[in-house]
Amino acid sequence: MDEFGLIKQYFDWGQGIGDDCALLSIDSDKQLATTVDTLIAGVHFPTNTSAEDIAYKALAVNLSDLAAMGASPLYFTLALTLPSIDQHWLEGFSDSLKTLAKAYNIALVGGDTTKGALSITINATGVMKKNQALLRSGAQAGDSIFISNTLGDAALAWQQIQNQQIPSSASVKQLNRPEPQIKLGQSLLTVAHSCIDVSDGLEQDLSHILAQSNLGASIDVEALPLSNEVAQYIAQTKDWCIALAGGDDYELCFTVPESKINHIQSIKKDLDIKLTKIGTITKKTGLKIQGLQKDCQSYQHF
Amino acid sequence: MDEFGLIKQYFDWGQGIGDDCALLSIDSDKQLATTVDTLIAGVHFPTNTSAEDIAYKALAVNLSDLAAMGASPLYFTLALTLPSIDQHWLEGFSDSLKTLAKAYNIALVGGDTTKGALSITINATGVMKKNQALLRSGAQAGDSIFISNTLGDAALAWQQIQNQQIPSSASVKQLNRPEPQIKLGQSLLTVAHSCIDVSDGLEQDLSHILAQSNLGASIDVEALPLSNEVAQYIAQTKDWCIALAGGDDYELCFTVPESKINHIQSIKKDLDIKLTKIGTITKKTGLKIQGLQKDCQSYQHF
Repeated sequence: MDEFGLIKQYFDWGQGIGDDCALLSIDSDKQLATTVDTLIAGVHFPTNTSAEDIAYKALAVNLSDLAAMGASPLYFTLALTLPSIDQHWLEGFSDSLKTLAKAYNIALVGGDTTKGALSITINATGVMKKNQALLRSGAQAGDSIFISNTLGDAALAWQQIQNQQIPSSASVKQLNRPEPQIKLGQSLLTVAHSCIDVSDGLEQDLSHILAQSNLGASIDVEALPLSNEVAQYIAQTKDWCIALAGGDDYELCFTVPESKINHIQSIKKDLDIKLTKIGTITKKTGLKIQGLQKDCQSYQHF
Repeated sequence: MDEFGLIKQYFDWGQGIGDDCALLSIDSDKQLATTVDTLIAGVHFPTNTSAEDIAYKALAVNLSDLAAMGASPLYFTLALTLPSIDQHWLEGFSDSLKTLAKAYNIALVGGDTTKGALSITINATGVMKKNQALLRSGAQAGDSIFISNTLGDAALAWQQIQNQQIPSSASVKQLNRPEPQIKLGQSLLTVAHSCIDVSDGLEQDLSHILAQSNLGASIDVEALPLSNEVAQYIAQTKDWCIALAGGDDYELCFTVPESKINHIQSIKKDLDIKLTKIGTITKKTGLKIQGLQKDCQSYQHF
């Protein structure tokens, strides 16, 4: 099959596909937010992951970056590298991608397919009013630090799979189908001082906020929001690092000034989401983790 | 080395890097043109290609897509997959990418680095006045079909390398360092009816214009613009397919109405570029290639 047949058969639901570039217009009071993420078989997902889960995650991790800025999804491009044409695989991939794109109202506007080891690069672009974006650099001393939902579930599932244990459906869902917190990001636009999505682990990602805001933080491991499964695992192993440095959470970590704390309750109620205060931004630089006995090794890309 | 160290060391010349997304503003009378292309070692370039040439080509092929729409380069993202951290390689890659980006005034605004088989995906975005873009669908019967510079040089170099022959410097330059025809694309904005960049070979790419314009064309192999080297190769082998279907030319193929033909002379002079008429758009569909004895096999992505 040639590339054009492949695109026609599996990706003709994209908009603007069929020229050298896709064309797009933007209102002048708006700003674009653009991000790119690559998923590689065996690195970012187990090699036997289904096509549906791979497609979902490849788009979801990019949506998560848009969420962390408070952007509304607008369009994305897909660069898909495949070892061969497997029609069954492509059908599953395309259907799943389309379903998620529809759910978050983001248009596929272009792509490239190449032959090689399985790899998916998505470049997602969102839009927001000018000067509203949630930046990593906006934290202020005294801000409360919050985390959405729970931490460590995806890392626990990944660890169990590698140890040939059977992970729970809930933790596998966290690993393969993380929910991009787009609505939460948008709700935080006038509430949070800073925000990041937790992809490499809380410790590393919170440290980016601290470095760019030139501040420190104190957090308490006992305050970390955990699922029963992860709580049980930590109770048995004392391995807090699964929640602090496991990565692949795709929850939002954000900081809120005292004057806006009352908004958190209404956001929790409106979005039916768990939001937990885990610590405070401090003038003194460095990240102090109370209750942690042993340092964690952060996820390293190389 | 972690990803953040790598970005800091080699890619800190990018703008807006250091948050979940890059932020960008666009005037409301403008339109974005976005495109994505992946290069894979051994598929799109010989595995022993230098880091400098790989970086150049990865950005140049995307600039070529912008050129084909008549867009002005604006920004790009880089997804770089590497088997390991080779500081010497990364330095060469980064320097070369930066030099080309500067020459075409395009900003690196974001990226992702991952571990895996060498692969580079660039998503480039350009800008132009609304409703001005050069589309594949705009050709009209009677238009003259033009090609910039010469065809077949890159394909000949690739073939010679595979046959362990030594290609000429000029043809290797065409293979590794194709010049994106950005200025030509912009000059054609009010002159050409349709345009495409020749990446998969003239026959296949011109067919996209014909399909999208619902028209046909008649071209003459004797009119194809060739370098001395390719002309000599064809004289010896009668292999016109090197120029018609070799691919990797990154020249612009465009169609011009009779009323605008006089503009071509001044563009040639202003840009000091070779522009050759190779045939005519016809009402009758299908691509008729005069002087071709044997059909060519087009480049297949899989």
